[in-house]
Parts: sequence; structure tokens; C-alpha cells
Amino acid sequence: MNNLLEENLKYVDDVLKQAETYEHAVRVLNYDLETICPTGGMSEQGKTIAFLANQAFRLKKDEKFIEAAEFLYQQRDSLGEFDRTLAELLHRERQKTKNLTPDEEHRLEQVYNKAYEDWLEAKKVSDYSVFLPSLQAVRDANLREVELREQPLPNVYDNLLDDYERGMRSEKLDEIFTKCLERLTPLLDRITHSKKRIRTDFLHRLVSDEQQREMAEFLLGTIGFDFKRGAFTTTEHPFTDGLARDDARVTTHYYPADFASSMYSIIHEGGHALFEQLQPAENFDHHIQMEKTMGQHESVSRFYEKRIGRSEAFVHLIYPDVKRIFPEAMYDVSERELYEALNVVEPSLIRTEADEFTYTLHIIIRYELEKRIVAGEADLTRLPETWADMYEKYLGVRPSNDREGVLQDVHWASGFGYFPTYALGNMYNAMYYNKMAEDMDIDETVANGDFEKINGWMAEHVFKKADRLAPGEWIRDITGRELTPDDFLDYLENKYTELYEL
Amino acid sequence: MNNLLEENLKYVDDVLKQAETYEHAVRVLNYDLETICPTGGMSEQGKTIAFLANQAFRLKKDEKFIEAAEFLYQQRDSLGEFDRTLAELLHRERQKTKNLTPDEEHRLEQVYNKAYEDWLEAKKVSDYSVFLPSLQAVRDANLREVELREQPLPNVYDNLLDDYERGMRSEKLDEIFTKCLERLTPLLDRITHSKKRIRTDFLHRLVSDEQQREMAEFLLGTIGFDFKRGAFTTTEHPFTDGLARDDARVTTHYYPADFASSMYSIIHEGGHALFEQLQPAENFDHHIQMEKTMGQHESVSRFYEKRIGRSEAFVHLIYPDVKRIFPEAMYDVSERELYEALNVVEPSLIRTEADEFTYTLHIIIRYELEKRIVAGEADLTRLPETWADMYEKYLGVRPSNDREGVLQDVHWASGFGYFPTYALGNMYNAMYYNKMAEDMDIDETVANGDFEKINGWMAEHVFKKADRLAPGEWIRDITGRELTPDDFLDYLENKYTELYEL
Repeated sequence: MNNLLEENLKYVDDVLKQAETYEHAVRVLNYDLETICPTGGMSEQGKTIAFLANQAFRLKKDEKFIEAAEFLYQQRDSLGEFDRTLAELLHRERQKTKNLTPDEEHRLEQVYNKAYEDWLEAKKVSDYSVFLPSLQAVRDANLREVELREQPLPNVYDNLLDDYERGMRSEKLDEIFTKCLERLTPLLDRITHSKKRIRTDFLHRLVSDEQQREMAEFLLGTIGFDFKRGAFTTTEHPFTDGLARDDARVTTHYYPADFASSMYSIIHEGGHALFEQLQPAENFDHHIQMEKTMGQHESVSRFYEKRIGRSEAFVHLIYPDVKRIFPEAMYDVSERELYEALNVVEPSLIRTEADEFTYTLHIIIRYELEKRIVAGEADLTRLPETWADMYEKYLGVRPSNDREGVLQDVHWASGFGYFPTYALGNMYNAMYYNKMAEDMDIDETVANGDFEKINGWMAEHVFKKADRLAPGEWIRDITGRELTPDDFLDYLENKYTELYEL
Repeated sequence: MNNLLEENLKYVDDVLKQAETYEHAVRVLNYDLETICPTGGMSEQGKTIAFLANQAFRLKKDEKFIEAAEFLYQQRDSLGEFDRTLAELLHRERQKTKNLTPDEEHRLEQVYNKAYEDWLEAKKVSDYSVFLPSLQAVRDANLREVELREQPLPNVYDNLLDDYERGMRSEKLDEIFTKCLERLTPLLDRITHSKKRIRTDFLHRLVSDEQQREMAEFLLGTIGFDFKRGAFTTTEHPFTDGLARDDARVTTHYYPADFASSMYSIIHEGGHALFEQLQPAENFDHHIQMEKTMGQHESVSRFYEKRIGRSEAFVHLIYPDVKRIFPEAMYDVSERELYEALNVVEPSLIRTEADEFTYTLHIIIRYELEKRIVAGEADLTRLPETWADMYEKYLGVRPSNDREGVLQDVHWASGFGYFPTYALGNMYNAMYYNKMAEDMDIDETVANGDFEKINGWMAEHVFKKADRLAPGEWIRDITGRELTPDDFLDYLENKYTELYEL
């Protein structure tokens, strides 16, 4: 490597280290804000966070830094894989923000902040009209952001989608979701008309917070969460945050009459945390540790939560401990009954509570709607009715108010393009599950509780290059195939045909 | 106010606002470090904290800021009370650090960091010789700091003492502690020889964490802690931290076989928090909210914990709830038995577990030792024996190892002059308790649970000027008298003569 290249690399590294120090502080302050900060302190803490985030932003907006970063991008073919990834990442960021003046950025930020507040209020009073003006403003803000980009993609929606799932295009998504609808719709019809009765009464028996905490710790330990390099606590809305190289935190929430909710929420968040904990240390050395897409991350969390966590093998593994920790709730429940109850399929109104089968249908509804919104083809004033009609069409249920309908999710308060990544996660992990199955008997490994083996495979095949490759290349690198929903759909068909005795 | 004065005030205000934003972040990150941060993340978080603290330090070291601050100091007689306090505060800070180069400061910081690590290790293995080299280095570092000051006080120890308790001098302390010994020693002898037997068995009955948490919340609520402007959680070592204007946090620790420990720890920390929550908002506007001395702060925490919290009136107030929350531990305990058990006097080895009577003797031992250490009159190699001899002399007990002797406290790892403030706290609050008694029947007010009245008096008389006046002026302002240990000693004599039927 020549001297000029090294000099520029060193300069970029120095600036990013400093920016990351600010960003580390921002993450800790945000974590504190969401977990323990009293309401009185929130406003001041919000200001401190904004100040520190701005310091990081300024460092990266500095002319000399930009020049060095662009130099690296021009010379990217002479760089090693990690450094090239970084150069490309910085170039992409720069393309997105180059024409965005600080004033305009501030104005857009205010649109999203107001939209979030309006959404909170609208959901509280279950009145879409409270959110409508902000939703229109958010759409305009999203369009404006795209307009300001260097070389935007021709399809406006694709630009937004690309922010969450690099390289993904709506043309590909249309194809994937069409396939899903073709196979899921008739199968769902057979399931809902099946004679099979699944017992779920015991899932709603009362279990104390203390017992649920013990269960959460047990489950995190079971899947191999490293408590020395992570923490866990409770919040209203569970989340995972990789605060630092050796500090990945998960949160959960306990409902006294729904013990399965916190069990699978903690496995889901634990999956996100494993992805953070088991990524290559080089990611941090080269400042690319945040390059995982939403779809990649959701693929991992859902792999642990759904694919592994709700399998018969896993239920077999944890059954004795579930009985031990929840003796009052589980005294008359067999292993098979627990497995079946955890996999019941039921068309419902709320996405976050949906089973793995109907979940994709919730996503398709949002995807179709947001494409139309971005294209200016949706009548926003009639959105609640359109939403309800689509729920009726795809899931056979109809929301009776806005809160359980169009207002249920926060995402549209900051824009469009996020939702599809949830569904893509299932498709990625179905593909790499099949690849993993070539190397081991997964059910046997899970039933033995050998998560060192499972996680070792994930680290080597799934986690290793996630930050270096766009998801399309990444899944090809893991499986040798292009992204397809087939593996996921086959899995659903097999699993639910057996479960519902179809 | 003339223009130049206003300009300089504005400049100083702007810089301090920015420095305080960094300091706010540092406090949140430190709080996180002590409460939830996993061991793996500590090192990186420590670096981020040091970076942010350094940013604040740089802002205050800036030449233009220093000039503006010194200008305000020269013109202090033209300033309002709050601004004058700030000008004086900045001037004092400047005098202490003016000749301290960044390199030398870094070197001293390393001495203290190493001493802390050595102390931890020494205490762990209970071997003073592991700590000895660092203790010598800490003494030298403290002396060096004094040497570098502008116009240090003639008595070296007084300079250190002044850092923790502004305006206090060892001459005054000698006088105070001599009086204490004169009156406490014979009284302690009578107590230990008294025939009175106090029942304490039930204090060691098992109580769950959940019950203790409920009790902690009940006690904080009882004394008027504002949960909207504060938070509470658990840590190994309980502490209070005023993180921001509307964010004062307390922590506690639960021992299954010692419920009284967490009860009084939470009242102690709650007292510190009330001091933070009920101080004048102007303190923050004028950047003087950190000017409370250790002695002032301890006077308030001990006022709530000891003077109020262990009074018969308070025990009367909480007795029904103690029985309700700890039914298994309290089923056969009368109100009087609870009161007596909470006030038992017992000479012991560990300061932090000492009763309010013997506590002062623990402090006097440390005070006498640290004066000699600073003066170079103590043989540091023989410190454990000297310590043990003094415990035997003053308290009639002798440590059997270093861990329960000279290594028990962390304080000397960062220097000398801190300990006396603990004892001074008791003397201040005994004086203002007597003043308060002129305005209300305190026992009746406490027994009625009217903490709005108690806290209102404290806010008006005790909290209001704590940041504006040095402790000597402050106690004179509250009580019209000079600091004296008499009120405290009279209180002890009356209380324990009755309790032990002397």
C-alpha cells in the first residue's frame, strides 16, 4: 500500500474513532433514556444526546475528512476487503447527504419528530385524522430526501427500500410476495378450516415477574448469550442495542398472563445480541460494524426465535425447565401440548403478535400500501378503510378502530421502506437453515442444547460477512443461491401440514 | 450592570452550558457503568467517559474563558449573589489548577487510578503491603497538588480538608473532636456496661428482594422523593447522583438477612436526593449547583436517615407498613422493640455499619491518622498496627486482619481530608434540627407523615443557600450560631440515656 493511501486511511480512522466515541455516548444515553431515566430528566437528556450526535456529525462533515474518504473510494481497488467496504460505505453516506444542507436536514428532522408525537397522540385517542397531516408531511419529506440524492434510483420507493435493505428492489419484492400469496392463501384457508383443536388455555395462566425473569435468564443462557459482554433488563418495548464491541444489551417485558410472550421476545432479542457478540472483531477495527441491514438482523433474530425456538427439538430441550420454573402454569401440560400451543396459527389484527405463518401477510399489506403512498397513488384520507379492506381480504379479519388498524405501528412516522425487511428475514434464514442442515442434524444439535455448534456455524457462515456484503451477495455467499421465498414457504407448508393434520 | 460585565457573563455562561452538557453525559455514563454495564463493556465505556470529561476540561482551560472568568472575579462586587458565587467558585478552581500542567495532571491521575486498583487487590487478599507503595504515592501526589496551588494555606492538611469542606480548618476540628471524645467516651462506657438488653434477632430474619424493593419504594414515597424527577435501582454500593436538574437517582442494595440495612440506606440516599431535588432552580441557571460540600450533603442524608428515620416518631409512622410488607419477619415485634433494635449501640470494626453513637469515634481515628500521614509523622509501614491500637483505645475492639482494619475504606486511594465531613454532617443537622424545633413540633409532624412540612422547612432554611455560602457561614445563617458539636452531643446523651435506662 502506498504512503498517500496509508495517510488517508489513518486520517479517516482517527476521525471515525472520535466520532464513534460520541456515538457510543449517544447509545448509552439513549439506552438510559429508554430504561431508567425519569420523565423529568428526559428533556435535558434529549438535548445532551442531540448535542453529542451533532458533534459526531460535524466530524464527518469536515471538508478534510470528506476529501480523505473520497480519495479512498477512488482508490478502493487497492484496498483490502474491510477497508474497501468502509470506503464504499462512506461514499454511499456521502451521496445521500451531499446536497442536504444543515438547515434542510434540521427541517426534515422536525417533520419526523412531529410525526412521532402526532402518531403517539393519534394512537392514544385512536383517531387517524390526528396523524394524517403528519403522514402527508412525512411522505413529502421522504420524497425530498430522495430528490436531493446524487444519482437516485429511477423508482422512488427503491431509494427508500435501499436504505434499509441495500440492493433490494421493489421488482424483486413484488415477485417474492406474489409467490408468497399464491402459496400461503390456500394453505391458510385449509388451516382455518382444519378440525384440529390446539389447547392454549395454559399460556394465559398467571406467572410472576420473578419467575419470568428467571426464565429469561435461563433462555439467554441456553442460546449462548454472553452475560459478560452483555446485559439484560426490562422496558415497555423490548429491543437490542449493540452499545460497544463488548456490550450488547437486550431488554424484555413481562406480562403476568402471557408467559410465552416474554419467552420468545427474549429469544428474539437474544438472537440480535448473538449477531452483535459473535461478529468478527475486524468489523470494529474497520468501522463497519453497523453495516448489517435490517433484513440480515431480522433473519438472525427470527432464526433463533421462530425457526429454532419454536421447533419441537427446542421445546424438547427446555420443557423440563419450563415445568420447573412455571410449576403452577405447567402442571398439566405435556411436551407436545406446549409445542402445539407455541405454534398455533390464528389470523389476527396486530402484526407484532402474529404467528410466523400469518406474519408475512401483515407485511405484504404494509408493503403494498406504502408503495402506493410513495407513488402518490393512495388516497391518504381513506387509508384506514383501505387498510381494513386489505386485512379482510388477506387475513379475513377487520379492525374495529384505527388503533388496532392503520395506527398500530410507529414506522410510518419516519418514513417508508422498512416493513419488507421483516419478511425478508424469514426468507434468508430459511435458506441458510437448509444450508446448515447439510453440515449437521440441526434438530439433534438443538435437542442436545449444543448452541456452541449452532452459533459457531452461524458465526462462520452467516455473521462473518454480513457487514461486508450487501444482502443479495451475502445470501449467495452463504448458500450459493439467489434469494428465493421457496425455502421459507416449503418449511411453512411442511410444518403446518403436520401440525394441523392437513 | 455595564455592557462589558454582561458580555463576559454571557460568554462564561455559554462555555459552562457546553461543559455541563459533556459533564451530564459523563454522569449518565458513570451511572450506567455502576449499575448495568457488563464487565466486558467497562473498559471502552471508561475511555468514552475520559474523552468526554476531557472535552469539558478543555473548554474551561481555554484562555478566553479564563480571562472572562477572572474579569468577573475582579468585578464581583458589582454582581448579584448568584453570579458572585459563580465568579468566586471559578476563581478558586483556577487557583488550584493554574500551575498544574496537563502532563502533571495526567501523572497524578495515574497515581490515583493505580492506587484504586491496588486498594481493590489489597482488600481482596487482605494484605496492606499490596497497598502500601500506592498509599505513599498518593500522599506525595496530594502534597504535590498543594505545592502547586496559588497561595496555599500554611497547614498542608487544611488545603486538602478545604477541598471537601470549604473554610474548615484542622484547628477547629481538633477542638470539636476533643469535645466529642470528652463526652462520648464515658457515655459509651456506661452504655456497654448497661443492664438493658435490646432484642435484635428479628432484624436477621429472611426477607425477599421483592419485599425489600416494595419497602424501599414505600420509604422513598414517605419522605417525599419525587419519582418523576428521580429514579431508583440497585447496586453493590448504594449511592446518589444528581444527573441533571430534574433527574436525581438513588441506588440501594438488598441483603436477605438484614432488611434494616436497605431500609436505612434508601432513606440516607433519599435524603441526598431531596437535597438535589429541592434546591433552588437558580443554582442551575448560574452553574453553582455542585457547590454543596460533603459535610452539607452528609448533614442532610443523616438528618433523614438517623435523626428523623430512627426516631420513635418515624418508627411509629412506618410500623404498620413494616408489618404489612415484612409479615414473616415482624409478626411478633412490637413498635418499641423495632425502635430499640434500630438504635442499638455496639462498638464495631466497620465504619459503614456503625451506629450513630459510635460513628464519630470511627471518624476521629481516621482524622487523627490522616493528619499525621500528611504531616509525615506516621510510620506508614506500621499503619495497620497503629489503626488497630486506636480501635482498641477508642472502641475497645481490634481488627483481626487488614480487610476489616485499615483497608476497609476506599477514600485514601485518592487522598486525605474527606473523612471529617461525615462527622461534621451530624453536627450541622443537630444544630438545624434544634432550630426547626422552634418552628414546629418535629415529632408530631413526622408521626403524621407530613414531610411536605419537614421538606418545606429544609428547602427554605437548609437547602436554599447551601451552594452560595461556605458551610461555616451557612450554618450561621440557618441557626445564628457558630458550628459546635454541643447540640449533637446533647442529643446523643438524651436519646441513649433514655434508651439504655442509664
